[in-house]
Amino acid sequence: MSKLKLGMVGGGQGAFIGGVHRMAARLDGDWELVAGALSSDPERARASANDLGIAPDRSYADFNVMAEAEAARADGIDAVAIVTPNHMHAAPAIAFLERGIHVICDKPLASTQEEAKAIVAAAEVSEARVILTHNYSGYPMIRQAREMVARGDLGKVRFVAVEYVQDWLAAEPAHDNKQAAWRVDPAKAGGGAIGDIGTHAYHLAGFVSGLRCERLAADLSSFVDGRAVDDNAEVLLRYEGGAKGLLLASQVGIGHENSLRLRVFGEAGGLEWSHEEPDLLRFTKLGAPTCLLTRNGAGATADNSAASRVPAGHPEGYLEAFANLYRESAALIRDPEKASKLPDLDDGLAGMRFIAGCQKSAEQNCAWIDIAAL
Amino acid sequence: MSKLKLGMVGGGQGAFIGGVHRMAARLDGDWELVAGALSSDPERARASANDLGIAPDRSYADFNVMAEAEAARADGIDAVAIVTPNHMHAAPAIAFLERGIHVICDKPLASTQEEAKAIVAAAEVSEARVILTHNYSGYPMIRQAREMVARGDLGKVRFVAVEYVQDWLAAEPAHDNKQAAWRVDPAKAGGGAIGDIGTHAYHLAGFVSGLRCERLAADLSSFVDGRAVDDNAEVLLRYEGGAKGLLLASQVGIGHENSLRLRVFGEAGGLEWSHEEPDLLRFTKLGAPTCLLTRNGAGATADNSAASRVPAGHPEGYLEAFANLYRESAALIRDPEKASKLPDLDDGLAGMRFIAGCQKSAEQNCAWIDIAAL
Amino acid sequence: MSKLKLGMVGGGQGAFIGGVHRMAARLDGDWELVAGALSSDPERARASANDLGIAPDRSYADFNVMAEAEAARADGIDAVAIVTPNHMHAAPAIAFLERGIHVICDKPLASTQEEAKAIVAAAEVSEARVILTHNYSGYPMIRQAREMVARGDLGKVRFVAVEYVQDWLAAEPAHDNKQAAWRVDPAKAGGGAIGDIGTHAYHLAGFVSGLRCERLAADLSSFVDGRAVDDNAEVLLRYEGGAKGLLLASQVGIGHENSLRLRVFGEAGGLEWSHEEPDLLRFTKLGAPTCLLTRNGAGATADNSAASRVPAGHPEGYLEAFANLYRESAALIRDPEKASKLPDLDDGLAGMRFIAGCQKSAEQNCAWIDIAAL
Amino acid sequence: MSKLKLGMVGGGQGAFIGGVHRMAARLDGDWELVAGALSSDPERARASANDLGIAPDRSYADFNVMAEAEAARADGIDAVAIVTPNHMHAAPAIAFLERGIHVICDKPLASTQEEAKAIVAAAEVSEARVILTHNYSGYPMIRQAREMVARGDLGKVRFVAVEYVQDWLAAEPAHDNKQAAWRVDPAKAGGGAIGDIGTHAYHLAGFVSGLRCERLAADLSSFVDGRAVDDNAEVLLRYEGGAKGLLLASQVGIGHENSLRLRVFGEAGGLEWSHEEPDLLRFTKLGAPTCLLTRNGAGATADNSAASRVPAGHPEGYLEAFANLYRESAALIRDPEKASKLPDLDDGLAGMRFIAGCQKSAEQNCAWIDIAAL
Repeated sequence: MSKLKLGMVGGGQGAFIGGVHRMAARLDGDWELVAGALSSDPERARASANDLGIAPDRSYADFNVMAEAEAARADGIDAVAIVTPNHMHAAPAIAFLERGIHVICDKPLASTQEEAKAIVAAAEVSEARVILTHNYSGYPMIRQAREMVARGDLGKVRFVAVEYVQDWLAAEPAHDNKQAAWRVDPAKAGGGAIGDIGTHAYHLAGFVSGLRCERLAADLSSFVDGRAVDDNAEVLLRYEGGAKGLLLASQVGIGHENSLRLRVFGEAGGLEWSHEEPDLLRFTKLGAPTCLLTRNGAGATADNSAASRVPAGHPEGYLEAFANLYRESAALIRDPEKASKLPDLDDGLAGMRFIAGCQKSAEQNCAWIDIAAL
Repeated sequence: MSKLKLGMVGGGQGAFIGGVHRMAARLDGDWELVAGALSSDPERARASANDLGIAPDRSYADFNVMAEAEAARADGIDAVAIVTPNHMHAAPAIAFLERGIHVICDKPLASTQEEAKAIVAAAEVSEARVILTHNYSGYPMIRQAREMVARGDLGKVRFVAVEYVQDWLAAEPAHDNKQAAWRVDPAKAGGGAIGDIGTHAYHLAGFVSGLRCERLAADLSSFVDGRAVDDNAEVLLRYEGGAKGLLLASQVGIGHENSLRLRVFGEAGGLEWSHEEPDLLRFTKLGAPTCLLTRNGAGATADNSAASRVPAGHPEGYLEAFANLYRESAALIRDPEKASKLPDLDDGLAGMRFIAGCQKSAEQNCAWIDIAAL
Repeated sequence: MSKLKLGMVGGGQGAFIGGVHRMAARLDGDWELVAGALSSDPERARASANDLGIAPDRSYADFNVMAEAEAARADGIDAVAIVTPNHMHAAPAIAFLERGIHVICDKPLASTQEEAKAIVAAAEVSEARVILTHNYSGYPMIRQAREMVARGDLGKVRFVAVEYVQDWLAAEPAHDNKQAAWRVDPAKAGGGAIGDIGTHAYHLAGFVSGLRCERLAADLSSFVDGRAVDDNAEVLLRYEGGAKGLLLASQVGIGHENSLRLRVFGEAGGLEWSHEEPDLLRFTKLGAPTCLLTRNGAGATADNSAASRVPAGHPEGYLEAFANLYRESAALIRDPEKASKLPDLDDGLAGMRFIAGCQKSAEQNCAWIDIAAL
Repeated sequence: MSKLKLGMVGGGQGAFIGGVHRMAARLDGDWELVAGALSSDPERARASANDLGIAPDRSYADFNVMAEAEAARADGIDAVAIVTPNHMHAAPAIAFLERGIHVICDKPLASTQEEAKAIVAAAEVSEARVILTHNYSGYPMIRQAREMVARGDLGKVRFVAVEYVQDWLAAEPAHDNKQAAWRVDPAKAGGGAIGDIGTHAYHLAGFVSGLRCERLAADLSSFVDGRAVDDNAEVLLRYEGGAKGLLLASQVGIGHENSLRLRVFGEAGGLEWSHEEPDLLRFTKLGAPTCLLTRNGAGATADNSAASRVPAGHPEGYLEAFANLYRESAALIRDPEKASKLPDLDDGLAGMRFIAGCQKSAEQNCAWIDIAAL
């Protein structure tokens, strides 16, 4: 089976998430990186392309040029990965969608709702798809959790508790920290903790519970002196059908590297998953002992095993979960009728409404916001 | 050193917390249980007293009679433990306070604010003290956490996350479950999860952080069909000086037996404690690896060691923490000038304001409530 | 029910295990400490007795005098706790047995096999019993583990892995460390790690598996410079019926406070218990997910619940497990026909053979030793 | 930088470890799989090659033909991965070494010492290298542990405890379990648990401690009825300079999926690592609290960070550790003077001596075997 061809916008030397996308794309051998507009700095773009074995004529200084050139080639890219800061998602996404090239976009979808809506408009008239890398949804145990909720193992869901706590922004970042710089700039990021990690938590809660959130109330803080975006968010959630949720996103939680934790409590059972032990899912039936379900282990569901690569007990992690999105993207592109669990434009819009809702609620002293109306 | 004499109101056969108080009182040999009004059912009161080696003439059918008789004896009780359901705290507390007998009262202080205020009024004209058994504050690692915050190990506190999640009330309790019956009866309990476990969490957050809460907003739920009290509470907290907090109290968290977890995040460090590993305190200085501080172990503070009984690595638990309150109560009664960390009437009133604040906020769709004004 | 009367030999000011015995004896209200020969130093004996509320005329300078005096009193002690260093167990044990007073003796039974055999000889002609405080066998989850093995939940047991690793003796102890001093003196202790913690591990493995050990081979080390006893022991065990075992006892395992861990693997299932989370038992049926069984929780066996005091999720620990031995001793003395799980003289002798076997094997370069023959 | 060219022997459809090698080789983009003798069954070999995008003319039915053909091509492979069962390592390894093609060989090196020595003989006259995939040595925290021991953080090492416990062979495997079938066949595997997982544990202990083992004594068991190889091994180790070790390898440890755990205790500190939380290393200095060192986190050493791909807190796992061996193999082939931590022929021979030593000791009733003499 020949490999699909991938292009990349962003992700030049010194970037973080671009490298993650590339490893994820490589792991299963479905993709080949053949083109890129890896940096807005032409010199860095060239050097980065050379590092990555991209042919010089497919290293572009500009994503518009790239979109046009790749669309024109017989061996042009099948999809483009957009791994730029949030405010740089919309323009390239639209450029590639307009040429019918699939877009694999980092989250959140954009830095403003206007940009997000522009992407949607472009997608509506394109045959290409948008896939959003809410990578935590690629974990095998998250897939199993979703299946278990869907098949009723927990009964009716009552309450979802989700948190993403990290500490790398607990103080003013160093001047040369590229990753941090745009994330604490409201014009580039669009939001702070709510956008960078809150949207992940929010997506995960919905992905597993199968519930749609209707309203939220948020208390946002900027604890670090001089920080222009939120770095701590407490969000009350109300889901359709009476379920509730609680979301905590914090970038000042000293002692937590990247602690994403999800709990779902239903009438008949409860589930707990933590990013710190991603191959484990704790499941408790009302009145029974807690069971430790494992990746590809005893009691694994079909979706768990399908998302696994190695036997139970050999830890898989972040890159493998991310790679599941690339593997499934390849499968979807090869067979567009295939059912998919991939995060898509709807998820991207939901995330943008979550960000906007949190900001609006915070402006109104934590008032309830109807997010469907945003 | 001769033992102090303890009486007990409530705690007859079939009760739970009465037995806990008795074990806690016995552990260090400071107390001797010599009198009781153990049940409102005279037959049960008598049988219970007999089980416990209480002399027949000091087994009372009525706490008023007991208060009067014991106050009149030369060898009368030094203190009374009140271990009845919440709505039965105020009357006996007042009866004993009026006779100058110290009161060790289970939490919350009462089932209504009116009752609580009546206790305060009685205490103001009594020489006796009221000690409230917020027993989790007796854990050695909680004592160390408090010390570390107070001496500045975390810098200025930004955020406190506390939760108490349990599952024993996740479904309608059995008819003969005495412990559950009054707890889900609003007239007897005064509140549901917020009162029974939320007040513990709330006290602990304040005890360790040293911060006073000013405002709160609460979303209360009653997930179990037909339940007349809350069984799940999400509470946003605002502390003096700009710190914030998040409190979750749930009795429907299937998979959690009694998961009390506290995290305190400051500008310079973070702490984490969990009831599931009570001898452990995770401490992280900004930019340094997490350290595991242990009960009576390397790095133990004075308060940690003072609250410990056995060497590091030999687990202590719930009863030992509870017993610390009894040991310290004895020390305080013997030396009323002694500095004390014991929860007192102020803590009791704070807990009542917390309950009232949560209920008022919930009635107003999660509006912010100024709890000092309650 | 009136309390049983307890005497104590050893356990004066500055001692460790004496205080543990007293707390354990107090917790359930079955015992009253009324007499003692608490120290060989008369002044310390008097002061210690006074601290503990023992009447001056029942504070003895000599255990022989105490045995005689107590046996002569109408209200004499029912049992004596012997909490002296190992080489001081036999003489008092024999003295009390000869007067028909029950003996609750710290482990190991003695410092030499000769002493142990002398105790047995005394016990054979006495109506009194000897109970050995292998306290870890009092943990509720250990009781459940034993029950589960006995009723066949694991199928035929194949392999037992047990370890007790601690680090408090990883360097030369301070001069004034009374606890350490006699433990590293071969004349007083009789053995090092093998006696102090190895016998606990060995007893626990047999208690849970229900198997009798036939042969062992041991590699003993004294890693600390100048140490005259072993501080690290690796022991291969062969049980009756073909099962095997592996025992590690180490006092130089830096990072382990008191890590006692037991695993039992059978043909149909496996169990794992760790002293660090004593309320938890991991159980895995072949081909099924691991379940977390808890103290007094879902799936608790009768013996688990009987050994528990508080609801699931409220941690119990070392003192509660120790107290179970005192509670059961009281029950046994009150009803000598009652079935008992208490460690007894046979366990004590087995422990002495274990120590002797390890030492003999080590002298013979880890040769196999038939321990029944010792 | 152009990719290195990889061939593979074994690893056709239905195989396990071949897929692992391929993912590991792909992750960092250093390697391209271009040739293979993927199965001894020609039809399966062809189909497997087609699945993997290997050109039909480079899919060989026979590894000798492959070695010859690839050596003759200008664009022939740089290295071959040998992922066959143990008894099929030597012949292909020798065939490729003889043509100067580097060999990346699965462990153990061979099924007999004779085969191992034949590989060594071939390597001695070849310019090509042999790299053995003791993949656990690729974990970043294992690299840090090694560095910490080497720079003296633990002081002189006293004791190493290592275990690899799994349960997938706790019962007779199903007839169609290809992975299990050859592993329980002594003619193909050469050893049971000692070879399959014991050699990993043994290598890891030496890799981290920096110590060379001189003697061992082993008790081997075959607990599963009819099993012709060992499935449980307890091994006493004596290292140069007086350090000792204890190794447990078990395939009947029900409840353990793949529990590899290493502890190193020195005079001044202790380390603990577990495969279940591979991004974590527990480090305790004598008298200080335990610290949790993490992958790429606070306190990470140079080797830790160099072996990491994503920020701290994003779990890496088995494939990433395995991929480190492929990344470093590529670096070594590109720059043969580069210092390397890769397991090599010496490690392979050491593993074979370990297997032979265990078997010889077991035949002699656990006698001590001088493994240098094997």
